Amino acid sequence: MKKIGILTSGGDCSGMNAAIRSATRTALGHGVEVIGFRKGYLGVLKGDYLEMTTKEVAGILHRGGTFLQSARSEEFRTEPGREKAVRHLRELGVDGLIIIGGDGSLNGALALHRMGVPVIGIPASIDNDIPFTDMALGVDTALNNIIYAVDCIKDTASSHDRAFVIEVMGRNSGYLASMAAIATGAEYAIVPEVECDMKDLCNQLRQRYEEGRSNAIIILAEGAGRAQDVADNIKDAIGFETRVTVLGHYQRGGAPSVFDRLLGSRFGFTAVELLLAGQTGKMVGLCCSTIIPTLLETVVVSVKSPQDELREMSLILEI
Amino acid sequence: MKKIGILTSGGDCSGMNAAIRSATRTALGHGVEVIGFRKGYLGVLKGDYLEMTTKEVAGILHRGGTFLQSARSEEFRTEPGREKAVRHLRELGVDGLIIIGGDGSLNGALALHRMGVPVIGIPASIDNDIPFTDMALGVDTALNNIIYAVDCIKDTASSHDRAFVIEVMGRNSGYLASMAAIATGAEYAIVPEVECDMKDLCNQLRQRYEEGRSNAIIILAEGAGRAQDVADNIKDAIGFETRVTVLGHYQRGGAPSVFDRLLGSRFGFTAVELLLAGQTGKMVGLCCSTIIPTLLETVVVSVKSPQDELREMSLILEI
Amino acid sequence: MKKIGILTSGGDCSGMNAAIRSATRTALGHGVEVIGFRKGYLGVLKGDYLEMTTKEVAGILHRGGTFLQSARSEEFRTEPGREKAVRHLRELGVDGLIIIGGDGSLNGALALHRMGVPVIGIPASIDNDIPFTDMALGVDTALNNIIYAVDCIKDTASSHDRAFVIEVMGRNSGYLASMAAIATGAEYAIVPEVECDMKDLCNQLRQRYEEGRSNAIIILAEGAGRAQDVADNIKDAIGFETRVTVLGHYQRGGAPSVFDRLLGSRFGFTAVELLLAGQTGKMVGLCCSTIIPTLLETVVVSVKSPQDELREMSLILEI
Amino acid sequence: MKKIGILTSGGDCSGMNAAIRSATRTALGHGVEVIGFRKGYLGVLKGDYLEMTTKEVAGILHRGGTFLQSARSEEFRTEPGREKAVRHLRELGVDGLIIIGGDGSLNGALALHRMGVPVIGIPASIDNDIPFTDMALGVDTALNNIIYAVDCIKDTASSHDRAFVIEVMGRNSGYLASMAAIATGAEYAIVPEVECDMKDLCNQLRQRYEEGRSNAIIILAEGAGRAQDVADNIKDAIGFETRVTVLGHYQRGGAPSVFDRLLGSRFGFTAVELLLAGQTGKMVGLCCSTIIPTLLETVVVSVKSPQDELREMSLILEI
Repeated sequence: MKKIGILTSGGDCSGMNAAIRSATRTALGHGVEVIGFRKGYLGVLKGDYLEMTTKEVAGILHRGGTFLQSARSEEFRTEPGREKAVRHLRELGVDGLIIIGGDGSLNGALALHRMGVPVIGIPASIDNDIPFTDMALGVDTALNNIIYAVDCIKDTASSHDRAFVIEVMGRNSGYLASMAAIATGAEYAIVPEVECDMKDLCNQLRQRYEEGRSNAIIILAEGAGRAQDVADNIKDAIGFETRVTVLGHYQRGGAPSVFDRLLGSRFGFTAVELLLAGQTGKMVGLCCSTIIPTLLETVVVSVKSPQDELREMSLILEI
Repeated sequence: MKKIGILTSGGDCSGMNAAIRSATRTALGHGVEVIGFRKGYLGVLKGDYLEMTTKEVAGILHRGGTFLQSARSEEFRTEPGREKAVRHLRELGVDGLIIIGGDGSLNGALALHRMGVPVIGIPASIDNDIPFTDMALGVDTALNNIIYAVDCIKDTASSHDRAFVIEVMGRNSGYLASMAAIATGAEYAIVPEVECDMKDLCNQLRQRYEEGRSNAIIILAEGAGRAQDVADNIKDAIGFETRVTVLGHYQRGGAPSVFDRLLGSRFGFTAVELLLAGQTGKMVGLCCSTIIPTLLETVVVSVKSPQDELREMSLILEI
Repeated sequence: MKKIGILTSGGDCSGMNAAIRSATRTALGHGVEVIGFRKGYLGVLKGDYLEMTTKEVAGILHRGGTFLQSARSEEFRTEPGREKAVRHLRELGVDGLIIIGGDGSLNGALALHRMGVPVIGIPASIDNDIPFTDMALGVDTALNNIIYAVDCIKDTASSHDRAFVIEVMGRNSGYLASMAAIATGAEYAIVPEVECDMKDLCNQLRQRYEEGRSNAIIILAEGAGRAQDVADNIKDAIGFETRVTVLGHYQRGGAPSVFDRLLGSRFGFTAVELLLAGQTGKMVGLCCSTIIPTLLETVVVSVKSPQDELREMSLILEI
Repeated sequence: MKKIGILTSGGDCSGMNAAIRSATRTALGHGVEVIGFRKGYLGVLKGDYLEMTTKEVAGILHRGGTFLQSARSEEFRTEPGREKAVRHLRELGVDGLIIIGGDGSLNGALALHRMGVPVIGIPASIDNDIPFTDMALGVDTALNNIIYAVDCIKDTASSHDRAFVIEVMGRNSGYLASMAAIATGAEYAIVPEVECDMKDLCNQLRQRYEEGRSNAIIILAEGAGRAQDVADNIKDAIGFETRVTVLGHYQRGGAPSVFDRLLGSRFGFTAVELLLAGQTGKMVGLCCSTIIPTLLETVVVSVKSPQDELREMSLILEI
């Protein structure tokens, strides 16, 4: 293997730079050339890339986002688009490709693998919805960002009859909302996986205040509704002043946590080692504190199962 | 003077605890008793208060919010309500009262002053809309909270044709939005004081992207519209994906910045010194790095003038 | 089981409050009374404790340290001391005890277990030197504190011929130093487990600067030397200005990271479940994202093995 | 005026990038070319500079340090060195120079001014020891960094008979130590300006513990002694375990606070306006929330006077 490519695709997250840096330095250490494609698969299609050197990846470890940028490409979803990508990779002499991204990106990786391109996928998705890895890249930083904001909100004066609805990311996954609720002692988490009974929630809210507890935090996954709608519902039902925070892309950015820097570094390192060993068509995952590869074709047909222990704990802790 | 009271009223903010602690310790140092009313004027009306000791104010300096809590009281806005408050203060033997809050709270302070209660006001309002003080308590922390979030958002992958709308506090004041825009290098600030030409903004956005600049940050004061509406407008007009963040009460909380801790400490200290010197009916303010008192009756009829120099600078820096 | 006790012992760390809160709420949820001993084993010996209620553990989840306080007790290390502790526990009607701490504390836990007290240990030690758990409580927060400081130091102007030595905790363990070095892209980690060849380090430093790289970060575990001595060595050997930072107890405190809040919550929850199930004399540990119990007698005679993969990666990444 | 130069000199600090960016954008807005010298006066002597464009200063506003780098130059302190600098500036067609730095750098600025170079100085020094400005650039960020660390240390378990000594910057100035002590509620500040009676301090420490207060924080300016020496003194005198933290260059870096971003932006903006107006040989300063210029020759012969009110307040608050 003489030259490998790296790209970040889909929603960006903190820790991607650590993975890029580590993969680059590992490959260069083995005497392998590295090029980085800009804006994901789009860069492959457009031939938009840069030569990666030690200097190029200096000073990025503690930066959020991805310095290679990310984007979605409609063309790459088509058969001709993918054929063009494969052709470009061959013309550039790229013998292997590391793809950092979420489930859409990993599907793309599998497609390239099936067309003969040696690929390794690195799971990156703040929703933590990718199977065969305990944690995806970016989850820990996103959660730390969220709890920082929720802690601030809990600080503000407890007044009577007031509730706060905080909308976090998660279209199909309540992972961020649930974990943030446990980690901040929030009173409710509304998630896409479980139907929320607003009437019941309002009753609990009213009872809380009658017992003299002066504020309530509700953490809402974006896939389970809009924060403003939930707030309006509460106000209509029981007359409480309800304030809204929508964290949005604040969650994605920021200096990566130590967990995401180490995880990204390990993913990048192992991805290159696997490529060089010819172990391709796989995704690296964190399992038992060890980095374990799984076949991409297994990953894309599987669903991450929720941790029942955590759900049970939530109930006991009254979240 | 043998006994003074302290209360925090209106919207809470970071730095209130520093002011409470400083006023308490200063008064105790002069052999004056201190009581703290809970939930602002409500505590005066209900006789809900606690004896303030050095121990009571230990460990609060670095906490957001106000440990005396804050609330709005309808009753206190009425004549009979205020008479009841004055009666309660006399019965408790309170010779002087320190009121920490925004313009509504300072109006209440002036009313009590006119009814014979020696009062000192401390300006606290994250909108920085109180005249005769360069900075109100809580502004600096709120701004630091805002820029932390905006920096995170700027980190996330610059993709093409995307804009971010970030809604900050400020019902009638664009101070937070304007300063945050300068401090983060945001592209636009939409404020209540200036009519926003959405068509013009969209044109500028489109031009920006045509020049190859890949993202745009728009900071919106809540008084100038809803973030989601602005985002929908942009999407309808030029088809850009536009993401929304509503910072909400996140802005109010969090560990106070060094500026707010020092300002709160100085305000609390000077408030007590003024009370003891019989210089009452005044608000303390920060002016030229010095704490200067101004008559409350002057404060409540004045309007804070914007800093023209900053507006001019914004134009030059293309914000 | 009608009543359990909780204590935190040895060096405090972030996340202990999460464990206390979770254990308390879980036990109360099962109708079991809870008392919290102050200052670790000292509180047991002195009968210094408080009744734990939901209210008592409110508002502590996001606070660093341990609100039950921690201390070392000479008396508890003696046979008569331990007998007294057992007697006190019986008199108080404590049927089970949860001990949160490092290896010394877990040894104490085992001693009590052997004297017939049903105990569960929760590993808490920022050195991450306790076997049978991937991560001990407090490690993740400590590392995040460290990298925050190192990132700041890396920010400062790169001048020529300058090195920075940053001393982190770790008397016998280089874990914090090694992980922090990987996570910040530091140039060197000096750890107690590996002899440091200062001459070689100075040569590498000199070469670095000759190649035009303008600053170098050296992370030193306290057990491997004093920062000032290392700095003086470098200055004497190659004349570089070398600046020192000693992070000290800064590392232990601060709002716990999401990882430590979740880990503490899970440890506390499982500890109570085990106690109630009669599964005592064990330590809970994190293994494969699951909480697994191990016999305390196995824990105390084992040594945590380093992760060879990480060492190899460090070499490749040139740390 | 067709072309101006900018440089940062002496110890770097947070906010320098904001000043560089603002000065650059302001000058470009007026159609004036800008070049940035690398590593301060050294860059002038070596002809090491870069053309400043809007793109060059993009993405630096929220970064610590100075992207133009800073260094000390022995040669520039000599007469021939300065003549060479003036010659180089002429050859490059530089009509005006903005110098961002501390008192040494401002002395250099005055020397160039006297040799006919139109200069404007921008005060940047975390010690806040430059007269004619309420605050120098970098002070606010440094203080916020310090209090973040001290807050963490205060979090850790209060054990008995323990003290913490935290060394902060300040060779000749106790400003950081004094302000940090007020802002964190530390028990003592040891500063270069006031002789510290260690015996008295130890007596107070002992008395504190006898009263049951379980920890003490001592903030030490580096110019008033070494943290380890103070700790050893306390241990020898009264036998207390005393832990040391030396914050070092951690204080200089980190994302600039909102105060420093706004101050830097305003300084840079006004510096260019003054240059263009021919008002040179001056330093810009913050006074009464306004940016005011003062003659450099006045600045360099003056001494910043301490704020007596703050000293008095410290005494009352028992710091």
